Amino acid sequence: MNAPDHIPAPPADLNQLLTLTRDPLPASTKVYVPGAQAGVAVPMREIALTNGEQVTVYDTSGPYTDPKAAIDVRKGLPTVRSQWIEARGDSETYEGRLHHILDDGGKLDERDAERIEVLRREAAALQRQPRRAKAGGNVTQMHYARQGIITPEMEYIALRENGKREWMAEYQSDLNREMRLKGNGLGASIPKIITPEFVRDEVARGRAIIPANINHPEIEPMIIGRNFLTKINANIGNSAVTSSIEEEVEKLVWSIRWGADTVMDLSTGKNIHTTRDWIIRNSPVPIGTVPIYQALEKVGGIAEDLTWDIFRDVLIEQAEQGVDYFTIHAGVRLPYIHLTANRRTGIVSRGGSILAKWCIAHHKENFLYTHFEEICEIMKAYDVSFSLGDGLRPGSNDDANDEAQFAELRTLGELTQIAWKHDVQTMIEGPGHVPMHMIQANMDEQLKHCHEAPFYTLGPLTIDIAPGYDHISSAIGAAMIGWMGTAMLCYVTPKEHLGLPDRNDVKQGIIAYKIAAHAADIAKGHPGSRARDSAISKARFEFRWMDQFNLSLDPDTALAFHDETLPKDSSKVAHFCSMCGPKFCSMKITQEVRDYAAQKEAQEQGMAEKSAEFMAGGGEIYVPVPGAKA
Amino acid sequence: MNAPDHIPAPPADLNQLLTLTRDPLPASTKVYVPGAQAGVAVPMREIALTNGEQVTVYDTSGPYTDPKAAIDVRKGLPTVRSQWIEARGDSETYEGRLHHILDDGGKLDERDAERIEVLRREAAALQRQPRRAKAGGNVTQMHYARQGIITPEMEYIALRENGKREWMAEYQSDLNREMRLKGNGLGASIPKIITPEFVRDEVARGRAIIPANINHPEIEPMIIGRNFLTKINANIGNSAVTSSIEEEVEKLVWSIRWGADTVMDLSTGKNIHTTRDWIIRNSPVPIGTVPIYQALEKVGGIAEDLTWDIFRDVLIEQAEQGVDYFTIHAGVRLPYIHLTANRRTGIVSRGGSILAKWCIAHHKENFLYTHFEEICEIMKAYDVSFSLGDGLRPGSNDDANDEAQFAELRTLGELTQIAWKHDVQTMIEGPGHVPMHMIQANMDEQLKHCHEAPFYTLGPLTIDIAPGYDHISSAIGAAMIGWMGTAMLCYVTPKEHLGLPDRNDVKQGIIAYKIAAHAADIAKGHPGSRARDSAISKARFEFRWMDQFNLSLDPDTALAFHDETLPKDSSKVAHFCSMCGPKFCSMKITQEVRDYAAQKEAQEQGMAEKSAEFMAGGGEIYVPVPGAKA
Repeated sequence: MNAPDHIPAPPADLNQLLTLTRDPLPASTKVYVPGAQAGVAVPMREIALTNGEQVTVYDTSGPYTDPKAAIDVRKGLPTVRSQWIEARGDSETYEGRLHHILDDGGKLDERDAERIEVLRREAAALQRQPRRAKAGGNVTQMHYARQGIITPEMEYIALRENGKREWMAEYQSDLNREMRLKGNGLGASIPKIITPEFVRDEVARGRAIIPANINHPEIEPMIIGRNFLTKINANIGNSAVTSSIEEEVEKLVWSIRWGADTVMDLSTGKNIHTTRDWIIRNSPVPIGTVPIYQALEKVGGIAEDLTWDIFRDVLIEQAEQGVDYFTIHAGVRLPYIHLTANRRTGIVSRGGSILAKWCIAHHKENFLYTHFEEICEIMKAYDVSFSLGDGLRPGSNDDANDEAQFAELRTLGELTQIAWKHDVQTMIEGPGHVPMHMIQANMDEQLKHCHEAPFYTLGPLTIDIAPGYDHISSAIGAAMIGWMGTAMLCYVTPKEHLGLPDRNDVKQGIIAYKIAAHAADIAKGHPGSRARDSAISKARFEFRWMDQFNLSLDPDTALAFHDETLPKDSSKVAHFCSMCGPKFCSMKITQEVRDYAAQKEAQEQGMAEKSAEFMAGGGEIYVPVPGAKA
Repeated sequence: MNAPDHIPAPPADLNQLLTLTRDPLPASTKVYVPGAQAGVAVPMREIALTNGEQVTVYDTSGPYTDPKAAIDVRKGLPTVRSQWIEARGDSETYEGRLHHILDDGGKLDERDAERIEVLRREAAALQRQPRRAKAGGNVTQMHYARQGIITPEMEYIALRENGKREWMAEYQSDLNREMRLKGNGLGASIPKIITPEFVRDEVARGRAIIPANINHPEIEPMIIGRNFLTKINANIGNSAVTSSIEEEVEKLVWSIRWGADTVMDLSTGKNIHTTRDWIIRNSPVPIGTVPIYQALEKVGGIAEDLTWDIFRDVLIEQAEQGVDYFTIHAGVRLPYIHLTANRRTGIVSRGGSILAKWCIAHHKENFLYTHFEEICEIMKAYDVSFSLGDGLRPGSNDDANDEAQFAELRTLGELTQIAWKHDVQTMIEGPGHVPMHMIQANMDEQLKHCHEAPFYTLGPLTIDIAPGYDHISSAIGAAMIGWMGTAMLCYVTPKEHLGLPDRNDVKQGIIAYKIAAHAADIAKGHPGSRARDSAISKARFEFRWMDQFNLSLDPDTALAFHDETLPKDSSKVAHFCSMCGPKFCSMKITQEVRDYAAQKEAQEQGMAEKSAEFMAGGGEIYVPVPGAKA
């Protein structure tokens, strides 16, 4: 790839900004669990509790939270997967597509020559030659899986999904409790222990995907499927109105710190190619995009000017950069478009409306649909996964589950089978806005028509009247549909419908969705999910305040909220809290209950012994006094 | 009631503080819908849209949001219900219990004599003589209902629950859509129109309650039952550690502004009697309390020193003040206490742990259980409703649905039947911490054992690892259990488990619970619930930004969030938003879809006409050219 000559300067303070989010989370250490295959070392976060226990949790934050890792955003992250990709010997580097000025959505903003020279050098250092399958080859994880190959990625994922089970044993020792609480999978098939072979099998049958472009060797592999931990996606991206590249990279690091499993770069407007370069090279999580956005930029925003050639070129451009999954709105078919005419809110998907406009303008079938097999050829040369877009998703409760939505869903099911014919990994996007009582039908239809390909939903929002709080209105729907079998939940921030999320909005959206995903995991009975709740509850009950904070999804906020009422350090070891004060603590009283129960049990045992004596003595109520008259 | 001589001074700036929250919500006007019975005038909030429509919504905010209402917190609110209570002729005023210094939980903090004199005068102006049923009488709404009497309260509630249906008609005109979206009541029986007779019938059979102490004539009557709108409760209250009376009254006004249907005053520590006076006299919503808290204060915090006489005296004290419902933990029975010994988090209910301690210390049955019929006698003399407390509710996922919890629930069912024998209105409290897949069992057990008495749950929290965000982790459970049939949802604030909620936390908790309750109403198919969503979606689609904000649950936040990205006034009428920018708007494209669909329809009509012509012409494919050879 040639060095682009118009990358804007990274701001002098970007690395400085990043140092803000390079601290490990409180009381946390990054540990690496080694696998059998070379180079497999799975990062986890180990939380040290004040009672000496270690609780290990899934960690999406990448090298940023490892103080030993040297990070330079101008160089990008270490390329964990390179050795695996090369060892497979089925791909090759090549010159790559010429980076065109149009890729960054505008005319070159000529500034001084010196700055451009600096950028050219930096970009050259950052970029690698792209890699693709050898002619006629197929480098998808699904392709390997179907040949019975367990890739290092699959082994990595198995270890990552299991987590360290040793510490959980103590919390799972009460078998009565385990029986009472065991989840209800609603059709999921989650094994007690995830083996590499199970990962392979799920990928082979299409029930899970591993988004892992061979041009994104920086990722720490992860999996999306209903029989694994529920994942969440965070969207970032600039837009024509606000935002800058630097903010976007910063948002990536911030997003994965709080738990985003994948990140979608939804940039439009200027510098989208270069933004994407910086994001991918610095991302340990899979990156998704909606290529039609960039294609539209290249035709000046005029949807009817889009062509297959322009779109195809964008796919190559982004596949070479390392995008791990593409949202492709191939189900927005010409015959479905009029079905949206009487909707309350028409077509609300950007991609969907662009393609609808194109179809109407030309009165032709959607070119993504007609060229779908050619798209598959590109996907399998890089291992880009499909995220088949729901361009006709409902934008309000009133439009939920209507014919337009479900017609498109059925088409996505057809397309899934075409993709699978090419061994291309595929997931299906879902709504949107759906009242609670209509959510199950979405999951049912998706499972039925899309053959258990992973479902990836946006919320859904259960009501429409909560702008400013749609992370909450949608977390309700997300938790429910996650339990029902959705594999990944696309977050919604408090700014949904209102504006672009800032740093805090991104965090609010992510935490709301970590809650939804975790609630889903517990409900569906993921064997490694509940122990953390047990650990935090035990800490809470034993007044180990710092442990309660550190085991929570957001230790900083938990601590800050506690300190608003009781700021002194002594309160963190106090056996009471601000809710009741020192005299009135229900948890304190419970210890007395335990003493009482123990005493009661001892008494009953005493009674039992007496009873045994009694029975041994003949079992007569009136025992004759020895020597007395009968 | 004698004037207490130790009420602390209301702060000079209290009324000033209140003026902050006396503004009507944006674009809103208070309207009153008159009923047939004298004095029935039901307040509603009418939102004026920019397109000339009026949308009317349920309004809990009381006279505070009516600019025409003169408010003086030292005098209390107008007594809407007095005329109705007096007209029934079955109650009488009496001298009342002597207000004792112990009622305020401490020694008199002697300051200057002048200040005490001012307070004495103010308190005398505020207080009324208490009222109770004439000897042997029963003044409960249930008692009237069972005699076939439709009280003004019942008519008021019918009008209030219906809302103004006129404006909804336009949004409900698409019958296909209405069929597709109709709720799933899961056993609820919600009529299209709530009649006063329906209200009476639901109260008579115990499936709904109207908390309305005859000493709280200030309330705007409301109902709690699964066949009505789902209600929410907000907790306020001082504690030994922080807070002041003034803050509590301020929180009341703030709570009802955002939609609290009832408020529980959970004060402990100093000045709880006086705090309660100020709150009740200024509250248009029912007030609930947990009398055991005050009883414990009176015995210096020593649970084992509690006696029936002390507790009974507290019930009279609070009933005379006008408390509308009492949480009574009569189900914490001695034989159940040891069942909590092996729990992860023991007993977490304050009331539950106090009574457990008492039972253990005396090795006696809970005195609330043994004196339950005497409590009923008090309840029916004032029309205080029972909220039968779940003192053994789970405090963590690990303890959900265990034997301790369900043993207590079955006892609450027995007690419900005793209460109903006395025509005392009763609801049942529920958990707490419950994973999603175990929520339905809670509703099933409650319905089965408590004979459809309204269920009133705290959340439930679906996971334990989200301190700082438990309004969200619990809103998920609350929405689900609300759909399943829970009548009232007790809010949880972000500070749960961490500290005392401040003004903003209270608002966050309320909005999260308004979302949950509204999601439940839509799912269960409440006929008046969905139109507001339709109206806001239409406004959103038509770029009526101000209407979108004003129709939302929190217009201030929606506007502020929008303005963070696009602050200019012109953006509020712009046909684009910050998410996509001006060139890229999906909603704009939809208009073109509509034009296309119309054109398509016209074409098809044209085709149909042609087809009709064709058939009329004989239906031959090859029409002989007139004059040509055959």
